[in-house]
Amino acid sequence: MTEHTVDKTKTRNLNGVDVGQLFKTIEAIKGTPDIAKFKFRATNEWIHGGHNRTTVKDFYGAQQDHDHLSPFVLDEDEPEVLLGEDKGPNPVEYLLTGLIGCLTSALVYHAAAKGIQIKGVKSRLEGDIDLRGFLGLSPDVKVGYANIRVYFKIDADVSDEQKEELIKMAQKYSPVFNTVSNPTPVWVSLDK
Amino acid sequence: MTEHTVDKTKTRNLNGVDVGQLFKTIEAIKGTPDIAKFKFRATNEWIHGGHNRTTVKDFYGAQQDHDHLSPFVLDEDEPEVLLGEDKGPNPVEYLLTGLIGCLTSALVYHAAAKGIQIKGVKSRLEGDIDLRGFLGLSPDVKVGYANIRVYFKIDADVSDEQKEELIKMAQKYSPVFNTVSNPTPVWVSLDK
Repeated sequence: MTEHTVDKTKTRNLNGVDVGQLFKTIEAIKGTPDIAKFKFRATNEWIHGGHNRTTVKDFYGAQQDHDHLSPFVLDEDEPEVLLGEDKGPNPVEYLLTGLIGCLTSALVYHAAAKGIQIKGVKSRLEGDIDLRGFLGLSPDVKVGYANIRVYFKIDADVSDEQKEELIKMAQKYSPVFNTVSNPTPVWVSLDK
Repeated sequence: MTEHTVDKTKTRNLNGVDVGQLFKTIEAIKGTPDIAKFKFRATNEWIHGGHNRTTVKDFYGAQQDHDHLSPFVLDEDEPEVLLGEDKGPNPVEYLLTGLIGCLTSALVYHAAAKGIQIKGVKSRLEGDIDLRGFLGLSPDVKVGYANIRVYFKIDADVSDEQKEELIKMAQKYSPVFNTVSNPTPVWVSLDK
């Protein structure tokens, strides 16, 4: 976000993003990089079969702990064909939710920083999973998504070429896209 | 799930998982591997700033399209410190939600397949993101999670060693864990 055409003093809000505050944050981080270090958290409790419940309550960032305005409680379940009762999206659908939301926000925030007004963004995505991996039936089959395809429709007064640029920028700066595209170390341990 | 100690005719339901149906599904997949090919989907609409909304409505699997019992609508937003209005978990928290739910379900389903009764599972996780990556302030900083730590508490009449085995199994067979741990291709394109 170092290249931009925004008049920082005039444009305070673009695409619903407080651009003045965004640039203030960037200046603060340049002085104190620790401000940028965030820790996101969730807890989960198993209910029954494929049904479990995640609570997202607090996080650490800008050098202090923060509570969300209220805790978010998210039911996860499997559909009937996967032996659940369909009481919520399943975990691989939550992953898609994070991915599409993150690409969208990265696109909107970075467009705002560049002074590009966005009127609307709609998107859809689809990912392939061969459940022989989950079931341990075939060691050659990937356990996770083999691939994911995302399609964006952007309503803005810019050329298709510039829309393509926005999409590239979204990929470059989206934390979830980069977590999924690159190998991310996950340490799992037993609390005794 | 080929090694197991379950009497398939007697144990119909363990940990809320219909084990008889699970083994029937496995047999069906062995005969017709295409049954195991699933496509999960979501759509998203941007609302304002960091606020967008994902809908999870249908998926493909077992050789046909399926609707969820009802569509799941999930708000995503950023907290105030990240210039949002905190109207939902943010995308990187949805990723954690998918990860913890998936590890939990993999643990519970595979324990059921092995005849291990689970009384309870609680877990928590935390991941580190340095927002200098998102902001494009430092090319050396990872844009996604640098790492994620997951902690499980398992209530079951088995030894700690067996609990450690359950956790290893969860990692081996969890689709979200494997999507995040390994590089997963994500294709993003413009719908014109």
